[in-house]
Amino acid sequence: MLRMVVLGCGRIGQMHAANVARHPRATLAGVYDLHQPSADSVAAAQGVRAFASAEDVFASPDVDAVLIATATPTHADYIEMAIAAGKAVLCEKPIDLNLNRVNACAAKIKGTKLPIQLGFNRRYDPGHSAARAAMLAGEIGDLHQVIITSRDPGLPPKAYLEAAGGLFRDMTIHDFDLARFMLVEEPIEVFALANALIDPALGQELNEVDSAMFVLRTASGKQCHINNSRTAVYGYDQRVELMGTKGMLLSDNRKPHELRRYSATTTETSAPYQFFFLERYLEAFMAEIDGFVDCVEKGAKPLASFEDGRRALILAEAAYLSLRERRLVKVSEVSG
Amino acid sequence: MLRMVVLGCGRIGQMHAANVARHPRATLAGVYDLHQPSADSVAAAQGVRAFASAEDVFASPDVDAVLIATATPTHADYIEMAIAAGKAVLCEKPIDLNLNRVNACAAKIKGTKLPIQLGFNRRYDPGHSAARAAMLAGEIGDLHQVIITSRDPGLPPKAYLEAAGGLFRDMTIHDFDLARFMLVEEPIEVFALANALIDPALGQELNEVDSAMFVLRTASGKQCHINNSRTAVYGYDQRVELMGTKGMLLSDNRKPHELRRYSATTTETSAPYQFFFLERYLEAFMAEIDGFVDCVEKGAKPLASFEDGRRALILAEAAYLSLRERRLVKVSEVSG
Amino acid sequence: MLRMVVLGCGRIGQMHAANVARHPRATLAGVYDLHQPSADSVAAAQGVRAFASAEDVFASPDVDAVLIATATPTHADYIEMAIAAGKAVLCEKPIDLNLNRVNACAAKIKGTKLPIQLGFNRRYDPGHSAARAAMLAGEIGDLHQVIITSRDPGLPPKAYLEAAGGLFRDMTIHDFDLARFMLVEEPIEVFALANALIDPALGQELNEVDSAMFVLRTASGKQCHINNSRTAVYGYDQRVELMGTKGMLLSDNRKPHELRRYSATTTETSAPYQFFFLERYLEAFMAEIDGFVDCVEKGAKPLASFEDGRRALILAEAAYLSLRERRLVKVSEVSG
Amino acid sequence: MLRMVVLGCGRIGQMHAANVARHPRATLAGVYDLHQPSADSVAAAQGVRAFASAEDVFASPDVDAVLIATATPTHADYIEMAIAAGKAVLCEKPIDLNLNRVNACAAKIKGTKLPIQLGFNRRYDPGHSAARAAMLAGEIGDLHQVIITSRDPGLPPKAYLEAAGGLFRDMTIHDFDLARFMLVEEPIEVFALANALIDPALGQELNEVDSAMFVLRTASGKQCHINNSRTAVYGYDQRVELMGTKGMLLSDNRKPHELRRYSATTTETSAPYQFFFLERYLEAFMAEIDGFVDCVEKGAKPLASFEDGRRALILAEAAYLSLRERRLVKVSEVSG
Repeated sequence: MLRMVVLGCGRIGQMHAANVARHPRATLAGVYDLHQPSADSVAAAQGVRAFASAEDVFASPDVDAVLIATATPTHADYIEMAIAAGKAVLCEKPIDLNLNRVNACAAKIKGTKLPIQLGFNRRYDPGHSAARAAMLAGEIGDLHQVIITSRDPGLPPKAYLEAAGGLFRDMTIHDFDLARFMLVEEPIEVFALANALIDPALGQELNEVDSAMFVLRTASGKQCHINNSRTAVYGYDQRVELMGTKGMLLSDNRKPHELRRYSATTTETSAPYQFFFLERYLEAFMAEIDGFVDCVEKGAKPLASFEDGRRALILAEAAYLSLRERRLVKVSEVSG
Repeated sequence: MLRMVVLGCGRIGQMHAANVARHPRATLAGVYDLHQPSADSVAAAQGVRAFASAEDVFASPDVDAVLIATATPTHADYIEMAIAAGKAVLCEKPIDLNLNRVNACAAKIKGTKLPIQLGFNRRYDPGHSAARAAMLAGEIGDLHQVIITSRDPGLPPKAYLEAAGGLFRDMTIHDFDLARFMLVEEPIEVFALANALIDPALGQELNEVDSAMFVLRTASGKQCHINNSRTAVYGYDQRVELMGTKGMLLSDNRKPHELRRYSATTTETSAPYQFFFLERYLEAFMAEIDGFVDCVEKGAKPLASFEDGRRALILAEAAYLSLRERRLVKVSEVSG
Repeated sequence: MLRMVVLGCGRIGQMHAANVARHPRATLAGVYDLHQPSADSVAAAQGVRAFASAEDVFASPDVDAVLIATATPTHADYIEMAIAAGKAVLCEKPIDLNLNRVNACAAKIKGTKLPIQLGFNRRYDPGHSAARAAMLAGEIGDLHQVIITSRDPGLPPKAYLEAAGGLFRDMTIHDFDLARFMLVEEPIEVFALANALIDPALGQELNEVDSAMFVLRTASGKQCHINNSRTAVYGYDQRVELMGTKGMLLSDNRKPHELRRYSATTTETSAPYQFFFLERYLEAFMAEIDGFVDCVEKGAKPLASFEDGRRALILAEAAYLSLRERRLVKVSEVSG
Repeated sequence: MLRMVVLGCGRIGQMHAANVARHPRATLAGVYDLHQPSADSVAAAQGVRAFASAEDVFASPDVDAVLIATATPTHADYIEMAIAAGKAVLCEKPIDLNLNRVNACAAKIKGTKLPIQLGFNRRYDPGHSAARAAMLAGEIGDLHQVIITSRDPGLPPKAYLEAAGGLFRDMTIHDFDLARFMLVEEPIEVFALANALIDPALGQELNEVDSAMFVLRTASGKQCHINNSRTAVYGYDQRVELMGTKGMLLSDNRKPHELRRYSATTTETSAPYQFFFLERYLEAFMAEIDGFVDCVEKGAKPLASFEDGRRALILAEAAYLSLRERRLVKVSEVSG
């Protein structure tokens, strides 16, 4: 049993704590949050220890691994501290909003044999996974195009947006990672177009966008489109399409159940899609922990690595450059 | 080009006339209706001759075949007259509401080499046909169960019901035929249960039912369920399911187009199904004429024969006996 | 926290033990199995006590409730013992294979205020529940027909079949219960037709059937069809359709994920359906415990009661009578 | 009855001739083709006159309108000749491959009151039409994004490609038009990325591409993505998605029938999509003639006008400029 401590007891930390607690091969060895009452509450609910500080967690000999679900600015520090303390790491995305900080972190942890896994949950989704496996097995011949539709159910609060680092680094980063995961090859060019369509006022105040379209291309010419919106009222819209010479694969949305309704004016009406990531990617979040335990116990390579986190951020940087300069940008322009 | 005359210019006769007129291997050689203005109107619309009487049609040397779409009580007479006159016959179902009359007609036309095809349009539906072909090709292994859902979009007017001969002979007869078509083997036992649920008053006046469930069984034990209703407000509901040892086949409903709508409370909402048989079986009605031309010109055997029409009526009779006696009835009890 | 002990550590008992263990409002207070090693193994996996006997469980003051998942012949005894000991009961179906034994049990526990809930998991399925709720809310007007498709993924081993009490009491009993749940009214008439189609040899040896069709009717004329097969190679097939005057509701099958495949010869190909009840009704099994905790803690009435278990068995008896006598049977003929 | 002559008896001309012939409000008044035997063959099949020259058609007093389905380089000439001769025009896309020629044609026919309708068949598709109508009716609130998937079933022959004017002017032109149709507002910026992925050799020889992705933006910020491929082996892939603040609309693909297949390894397998435009847009081609008759007889404005044809070509030009310069291009840069 892998003894894991969850750092950060917000919404996503609470979910991770519950998932670790019920995982057959992991134990929740405690939780920590800067805000002590949050930690205490989760600790009580799970019947585990609330650590007084992150330092205490890293110092504890009864802890094998940490799951970092704290505020973004702390991620890189905690990764460095965990590695220094000999703990395996499962860290929520993004590593940091600043590429220099990520590169510095990479330099510091270089050479470690400890597993560091990034929280790119979509890589673990059963539908997306099955699509990729079928593609790798040759089912659609040569892959030519990837289309990713990724829409959140609504605009987050202003406070969230102020800290999130911009749509491309906060939301699209998942799609940039998924694009890399599906393309298999590295994208070398990026184009971005974005607007504040849902709330133009917020757009002016925060210089933020809420609707975006991207086009990526790999060295061999494979093409990828991503479209983002923060306003899918019909539920979290998460689709991936892989188009190849011998066929197509479509990993589609998931409904809470399969009831269809028929009336004098409609047929086949279903319920809204799973509301948001906690619901839609429930199985993926569990599989993520599964994969992490395999990394620690069996020496497996993380399906989503630190380098994957860094690469996704580079694509976000390239996309911002494209947005500013209204042109197709080479990824090498920002990755140095 | 097969020179066909359409007898009967009601709703279904008008459709047949238009279909024959635009068929690449058939010509509309005229129309006839007891109600002369109806015939004149269709004749004018299609630019063809309106015959003054059925006798004139049968006597005409420029007519190769007749499509009988007149009132049910005339069907058997016209079949006999057509065969006597050497014309091929495509006749709307049912042959007659009375089994004795059907048997007498069968005796009279016995031995004819002229094609007589019944208007069991569903046998010609692309989806149903493909299901049967896949089943016959062994795709689902041994067939065990057939489930037929057959629901009309609404109650017909009282006047129609008074002449229609009862739900089993008027509506279910299509399903009895489809059951035989899919089971391949002959059903030997029938059970029926029926009620007047939509309009109990009408039920009392006409001794008519509007909702029914049937179970059929063949000699080798294959099972078939039919369910009928006259009140599918979401559109004409026409489904066939073939269940076998190696798989299942489902010929599902057809929508007018593939638009799906998504809102804050619904997803994947489609339009109501094709309204009724003229819309749903449009392609089948065309294919029916295609098949008929093949029968006349190439000597093909009708996919829906006179005997199929007789057999379907026998199943309706057995079903009425079952309804009265509340028991599983042997088909041989009514077929003699 | 409701302290529950699971009696019986077979496949379904193991699942229940895991579900209780992770339920937020219940605690797994131990397990028991006649076969001590089975109990020890589950106890070790869950970190709980293995009781040495059922008597010990009933005698323990630290146990609030029992979940009976032992062999069918012990169900009625354990229910009586549990009630006598003041423990709430959640019992797997069926109560017993013999209606007299069920009636005797009913007499013995008469008047108890302790909750007794039956394991009719389908009542707790999100899709089926939403269908019923929509119907009760008037969405489809008056309900006229219920169609239940219920097919297992394959024939169970001969040993299982010998003890199971026959298809109607073992498998269809779930569908009889679901029919009652959806019809709201009590069925008063039953017709059954069944064959051994998959394995005729087994049919001869055990007088068992593997494919069946049923028609039920309520006092007001509502109709219900159930079709059963033990050989759905494409996965556990579990559908419920509610047809009414203003619309239709279809609770359809659930796939493991929403990947669809497209090739030169196929489109929209999905994975097989969830394999069997443990997969398909996972959420229902959890919701079942949820409902049970509500019964004990908040005095809620069980959604699936002892009387529901008895009624479903009566329908199975009526169906067997119909099968033998080849006729529509009144439920009152067997319920006395 | 509108008397129409079809110019051009190739694949699409033959289809148009048959559609006009069976249209209830139009008559096929003859056909013409540079290759006389082609014209003769179609004329014989439809029982109409084969004109000896286009001039004869324009000079004939018995012709009200022409449907131009000849080779692209003749379109503009025939439009000018038809207008000069007082005939209404329904012209296949594109008007010409050269924008200057189109502008010259526009100048020449300026001020005519005769209807000129462009063959942008997709505007007449029942699904796409219903999507647009729902959007205009406010069903999805403010439109933010349009996603157009448009993939041909296979690479056309090299000879076709040499004359076609390039993917953007030949194939994407339909999508550019559809984008304008759905966005309602005019796109003001275009980005294009394209490759020869299916047949790189052909790409080098003809400087042609076969796979492309586009992003368009309107003045108010609405975004549109188009993706093209010439290699959809699963059938002609034609989807349009409209994303708005209150919902989403998806006009999806059409199958030849609704049979779904289930096996031990697959569920819900459907047939390939309609093969190509003749099959997929059959109803649209008929509706197109319907709309054209309305233009001539009732003075309706063409749903797809000459100016729409010119605008779509401008977008293609802007897209080629973007492809060459690897940047977001202003449409005004090419439209002058």
